[in-house]
Amino acid sequence: MTTPLAADLSKPGPAAPLQLTAVAAAVDARLDAVLAHESGRWKAVDPRLGEAVDELRSVVGSGGKRFRAAFCYWAWRGRSGCRPWGDDPPAALASDPGAAVALDAAAGFELLQAFALIHDDIMDDSDTRRGRPTVHQSQAGRLAEHGWRGEPRRFGEGVAILIGDLSHAYADRMMAGVSPAGRAIWDDLRIELNLGQYLDLRSAASAELDAVTAHRVSTFKSAMYTIVRPLQLGASLDGPADPALLTALDRFGRPLGRAFQLKDDLLGVLGNEARLGKPVGDDLREGKPTELLALALERATPAQRSVLAGIGRRDLSADQVAAIVEVFTATEAVAEIDARMTALVANAVAMVDELPYPADTRAALVALAGYVASRTS
Amino acid sequence: MTTPLAADLSKPGPAAPLQLTAVAAAVDARLDAVLAHESGRWKAVDPRLGEAVDELRSVVGSGGKRFRAAFCYWAWRGRSGCRPWGDDPPAALASDPGAAVALDAAAGFELLQAFALIHDDIMDDSDTRRGRPTVHQSQAGRLAEHGWRGEPRRFGEGVAILIGDLSHAYADRMMAGVSPAGRAIWDDLRIELNLGQYLDLRSAASAELDAVTAHRVSTFKSAMYTIVRPLQLGASLDGPADPALLTALDRFGRPLGRAFQLKDDLLGVLGNEARLGKPVGDDLREGKPTELLALALERATPAQRSVLAGIGRRDLSADQVAAIVEVFTATEAVAEIDARMTALVANAVAMVDELPYPADTRAALVALAGYVASRTS
Repeated sequence: MTTPLAADLSKPGPAAPLQLTAVAAAVDARLDAVLAHESGRWKAVDPRLGEAVDELRSVVGSGGKRFRAAFCYWAWRGRSGCRPWGDDPPAALASDPGAAVALDAAAGFELLQAFALIHDDIMDDSDTRRGRPTVHQSQAGRLAEHGWRGEPRRFGEGVAILIGDLSHAYADRMMAGVSPAGRAIWDDLRIELNLGQYLDLRSAASAELDAVTAHRVSTFKSAMYTIVRPLQLGASLDGPADPALLTALDRFGRPLGRAFQLKDDLLGVLGNEARLGKPVGDDLREGKPTELLALALERATPAQRSVLAGIGRRDLSADQVAAIVEVFTATEAVAEIDARMTALVANAVAMVDELPYPADTRAALVALAGYVASRTS
Repeated sequence: MTTPLAADLSKPGPAAPLQLTAVAAAVDARLDAVLAHESGRWKAVDPRLGEAVDELRSVVGSGGKRFRAAFCYWAWRGRSGCRPWGDDPPAALASDPGAAVALDAAAGFELLQAFALIHDDIMDDSDTRRGRPTVHQSQAGRLAEHGWRGEPRRFGEGVAILIGDLSHAYADRMMAGVSPAGRAIWDDLRIELNLGQYLDLRSAASAELDAVTAHRVSTFKSAMYTIVRPLQLGASLDGPADPALLTALDRFGRPLGRAFQLKDDLLGVLGNEARLGKPVGDDLREGKPTELLALALERATPAQRSVLAGIGRRDLSADQVAAIVEVFTATEAVAEIDARMTALVANAVAMVDELPYPADTRAALVALAGYVASRTS
């Protein structure tokens, strides 16, 4: 008998809060306008150049919750003292000229996320993302379809590297209006993201799946990249922020970021494939260091350990994945990680009242934190 | 009987001018100091994180002429009115506090070049660069050496993608002191570089090896990236430059950049492997669109065309490469491209006197232009 989870992760979760969806809508509109303009500009030079921009536009337009954009926007808004959203937040956002630089920076985070996902998908050899073929797979298919010469894998991965690099360059261009203090945070987060991903890749290869490694990867790839740095950059967008504010944002964002990663890890084995847009079990096939796995390894009996020994094998069958997940549940690693996640979100929420932000901003951060925990995709 | 080249490209060429080597020395010292500091900072967090920085440091320290850095530096210096170099240019440079931002930007160009080379080497599956294994090859070897799990190629390429991305982030950080006008040029050049490389890859796959395509790839990947944009960024480093100056730098840099690419294309088939640090003939195996190839294809007899049909095959033997080079020579494509290169450099040099720069800067640009043409590596 194992402790049940607070929520069934395979079922649809609650709707995203308006404080996320309204920012996402404004950012999506901005991203599409920028990339449509770029596509036109480059097609006028050579239609072939526009293809690369169009592929990026299609990836960027294929969804994503825009958490990073929302954390950046709200941390900026809390300092900017602009008018309340009123009855129609998306309209209020779109018509607020003061928000343009913040929305650009928020859009920059999402272009950086597209860059990171496109490159990660190559490194992990993932076939699908958001329910569609990954860029390297779709480009490899293009070579075969046109009967072009060369190795499909090499062409697909080469083009995907470039489209990721292009997204990185565009992401950076969206930060043009950000203060030097904000740009320094942007530089830090990119270095942290790349080093965190390096540690992830290296630990998966060397099978260093301990809790310390998992926590370190999660700090850089999730806590800093997804939450702390977007908040700190938003707060520094117009100029240097009070160090006390940066520290308070760190104290809110770090536990929430770790919770974000724990939820991702749980969804990676217990979520719904169609809603996630990618196969459940891939984290296990890649042998990613996660706190969930580290805990299960610590608690496993010898018989359970032998089941877990399959982790890191690319050819794990669905049955083998199910057997591993059963060990995660039987060792109560799942229940413990779920409880940790809930406690971390509560810690973060408890910090919100220490932020020198107006009530609407604090309410938004609480709503975003709640959704980090409750989402099922 | 074919027209002989002005110089035997397999022999050592003239030494690089002091206006290049002094900037290179200052930039190399700055790059090494920055990456040594980063390595220490990250090793203190986790020794494994420092490995990625050390690999980048080793790539960046493995050479390179630092053309981009020098063009950036001199275009800045021409506007900055700083004191003459005197008898000891490297010492004068190192002790000039006003040059620090320019040297950082110059170093940023070389980190961007490391990023581009690391990623290009994956796309081209090149085994060696500057006489040592490419990053993806050396990292693939590391997996095998340690007996880590996974596919060596995937691990090697994954780590190389990340180290390239890390270099891109560091490159950008070196631009922190550059004016918004300079940053906009930096954004443009990165977009152009990626799109130029996309066109290169796509044309090689689809065998679109015409002169228009070759010229377009060369414009973005060489003329703009290597010469025009570094010059324009240098001139805009401290603030917006006079549009007339930007135009004049374009008129100097574009022919010189095209000449740079033509020289690269000639060296790619006629150069000395040991000095180039990479195998002669790889451009042919990759089926890169070059003006040299386009011209040979235009002029080839049916028998010669059948020899050229081997271009784009990864398994071309040394004999087949030699036969293709023989067609390049027999059609006088080699002589014609060499003549075009010489004429383009002369056009560029003729523009120098129109630049509103002091005599020492104009002399430096002439010396750099001469070396673009005379180098044999």
